[in-house]
Amino acid sequence: MKINGIPYRAIWRTEGGAVEIIDQRWLPHDLRIVRLENRAAFATAIAQMWVRGAPLIGATAAYGMAVQMAADPSDVSLAETWQILHDTRPTAINLRWALDDMLRTLAPLPPDQRAVAAFARAAQICDDDVEMNRQIGLHGLEIIREIAARKGGAPVNILTHCNAGWPATVDWGTATSPIYHAVEAGIGVHVFVDETRPRNQGAHLTAWELNSHGVSHDLIVDNAGGHLMQQGAVDMVIVGSDRTTARGDVCNKIGTYLKALAAHANGVPFYVALPSPTIDWTVQDGLRDIPIEERPAAEVTHVQGRDAAGRITTVQIAPDGTPARNPAFDVTPAHLVTGLITERGLCPATAPALAAMFPESARAPS
Amino acid sequence: MKINGIPYRAIWRTEGGAVEIIDQRWLPHDLRIVRLENRAAFATAIAQMWVRGAPLIGATAAYGMAVQMAADPSDVSLAETWQILHDTRPTAINLRWALDDMLRTLAPLPPDQRAVAAFARAAQICDDDVEMNRQIGLHGLEIIREIAARKGGAPVNILTHCNAGWPATVDWGTATSPIYHAVEAGIGVHVFVDETRPRNQGAHLTAWELNSHGVSHDLIVDNAGGHLMQQGAVDMVIVGSDRTTARGDVCNKIGTYLKALAAHANGVPFYVALPSPTIDWTVQDGLRDIPIEERPAAEVTHVQGRDAAGRITTVQIAPDGTPARNPAFDVTPAHLVTGLITERGLCPATAPALAAMFPESARAPS
Repeated sequence: MKINGIPYRAIWRTEGGAVEIIDQRWLPHDLRIVRLENRAAFATAIAQMWVRGAPLIGATAAYGMAVQMAADPSDVSLAETWQILHDTRPTAINLRWALDDMLRTLAPLPPDQRAVAAFARAAQICDDDVEMNRQIGLHGLEIIREIAARKGGAPVNILTHCNAGWPATVDWGTATSPIYHAVEAGIGVHVFVDETRPRNQGAHLTAWELNSHGVSHDLIVDNAGGHLMQQGAVDMVIVGSDRTTARGDVCNKIGTYLKALAAHANGVPFYVALPSPTIDWTVQDGLRDIPIEERPAAEVTHVQGRDAAGRITTVQIAPDGTPARNPAFDVTPAHLVTGLITERGLCPATAPALAAMFPESARAPS
Repeated sequence: MKINGIPYRAIWRTEGGAVEIIDQRWLPHDLRIVRLENRAAFATAIAQMWVRGAPLIGATAAYGMAVQMAADPSDVSLAETWQILHDTRPTAINLRWALDDMLRTLAPLPPDQRAVAAFARAAQICDDDVEMNRQIGLHGLEIIREIAARKGGAPVNILTHCNAGWPATVDWGTATSPIYHAVEAGIGVHVFVDETRPRNQGAHLTAWELNSHGVSHDLIVDNAGGHLMQQGAVDMVIVGSDRTTARGDVCNKIGTYLKALAAHANGVPFYVALPSPTIDWTVQDGLRDIPIEERPAAEVTHVQGRDAAGRITTVQIAPDGTPARNPAFDVTPAHLVTGLITERGLCPATAPALAAMFPESARAPS
C-alpha cells in the first residue's frame, strides 16, 4: 500500500539483494527503514516487534532463514536457525508455518543450492501472502456490500482491533483488505480504530494507514467499543488472527475477546480475516492449548509517543515500581465468531466447515 | 486514607476555613494541593477533572456553593451557582444530588444565614460520604470473606476498573472500601487494576493508592481482564458507579460494560459499590436516559506521564490530525450485575429490591 503516494510492502529485497523492513516501532511519527543483515538481526526484529502481525512474522522468518543460508547453508545451521527464529515469539502460528515450509524446501537440497532456493521460497511466501490477502479482501467486500445495501448506502461502520492492516502482512492486510476493497468499490465505510493498549498498534499503525489512504475513521480507546455497539454505531467487527484452531477458536491481540462478547451481546456480526497459514490444524481448544505470550511489564507502565518538541519519547504512567501483568493475546471461542474470512471464502467457525474448505490440511480427529 | 503515612481526605477545610483539594491531574507523580477560592475555581476543578469520582464531585460542588454563599448569598447567586456547578459534568448524578440538597437547605434561609449553613451542610455531606463508604466496606467485606473461605485462605483476586478509590470520594472509596476492610481483617486480597484509558485513573490513582496502603496488586491494560477471567484468575469484580438507575442499570467509566460481559460469560460475580446518592430514582432505562459525556479527542490521541527526566509531559500517540471519539461512560444493564453494595447492605440490581432497601427515596412507577 502507499505511504505519501509511494507503494510499499512491509518487507522487500533491494535491487542489490538485501532484505529491508519498516521498523514499525517508530510509526506513525518516523518512517525508519532498516536492513536486516544477519540471523541475529532477524531474531531481534521479530522478538522486539520491529515487525509484527502473524503473516509478516512468517514472511520475515522466511527471509531470515534465507539470509542465514547465504552465510552458512549447513544442516546444523538450518536446524539452529529454525529453532532460534521459532523461539522469538510463541503465539502466532505463521512463524512456525513459514519455518517448516522453508525447512521442507531446503533440507533435501545440497547445501550449496540452499541460499538461492531459500530466497526464491521466501519471495514466494511473500507473494502468496499478498495474493491471499487480496482474495480475503474480495470475499470480505461482499459482506460489506450486503450491509451497505441494507443501510441504503449510508456508510458501513466497522470496528477493528489492533493492526491487522498492511503492516501486519506483506501487503493489503487481513482485516483491512475488505475495507480497502470496499473503498475502491465506492462503498462508504467508517472505521472505529481501537487504540490497542499496551503497544497502541491501532493508534500507531491502523490510524496511520487509514489516514494514508484517506479512509474515514475515528480512533477510540479500547474501552469504548462496547458502548458504541450498544448505541447501534457499529455495523460489523473485523479483526485479524495470530492463530486460529481447527474448530475455529481465534487467538488474537489481547482485548479481542471483549469485543467479541460485546458484538455477540448486541447482535453485531464479528468476522475474523485470516489467510490459511494462520490456522493451526493441530489444536482444537484454543483456550487450553495456545501458549499466550506474556510481555514485559514496562509495556503497561509506560507509553511511547511524540512530545511537544517532536521527540519520540516514553512516559511512565504508573507509580515507580508498579507491578503489572501483560498477556499479549487472548482467545475468542468459536461460538462468538460470525465467520472466518479466508482466501477461499467465508467459512463458519466450526471444525467441519474449516475441514471442508481446506481438506488438504485438515487432520482426522485424534 | 494515608499518603506517606499521613491521613488525607480528598477535600477538606483548613483551620482558616479555606477549602482545599488534591489536584488529581498530577498524581501519581506529584502531590499538588490546591485552594479553591471562588465559584469559578470550583467549576473548573470539576469540569477539568482536578477532582473526579461521583461522590467527590458532589462534595466539591457542595463546598463550591458554600464558598459562593460567603461571597454573595442572594437568591440570584444561589440559583446561578446551582446551574453553573450543575453544568460542569453531565453524567454523575451525585453532582445534582448534592446541589439539590444544598438548595433545599439554603433557599428557605435569609441570605445572611446562608454561608454558615452552607459550610455546615457541605461538611455534613462529606462526613456522610465517609460513613456511607465505611458501611459499604463492611458489607463488601462479608462478600470477600465468603470467597476467601471457599478458597481455603488463598488470596481473593479482585478486578477493578477506573478509580472508585478514596480519591473518588471524600474517604475510603466505594469499590476499594471492601478491599481496605478485607486487608484490615487480615484476609488476603490481590487486585487487578485496569489502567482505564483514556485518562488512566487506574494507573494514576488506583495503583497509587493501593501501593500507598501496601495492598497487593497488578496493573493491567483494559484489554486484559477478559483473558484473566477466562483463565480463572479473577474471583470477583468490584467497580463504582457514576449513576445507578432505579432498576439497577449501572452507568460507570467507559469500559465497565465490557468487564461486566466478561464476568457474566465466565461466571465471575460482578459487584457495584455505591452510596445511595448515586442512585437516580427518576431513571429506569440507563441506556436510553442517562446522558453520556463526550470528552475531548485529545484525551484519546495523547497520554500524560513522567518522562525520563522526571518531567510530567504529554505525548501524542496518533498521527497528526487523527479524529477520535471519546465517550466517557457506558451503561451496564442490570442483568449483568450480581449485586449492588450500598451503605445499607447488598442489594440485587432490580427495581423492587432497590425500592425495598430505600423506601423513602423510591418513586412509584410513572
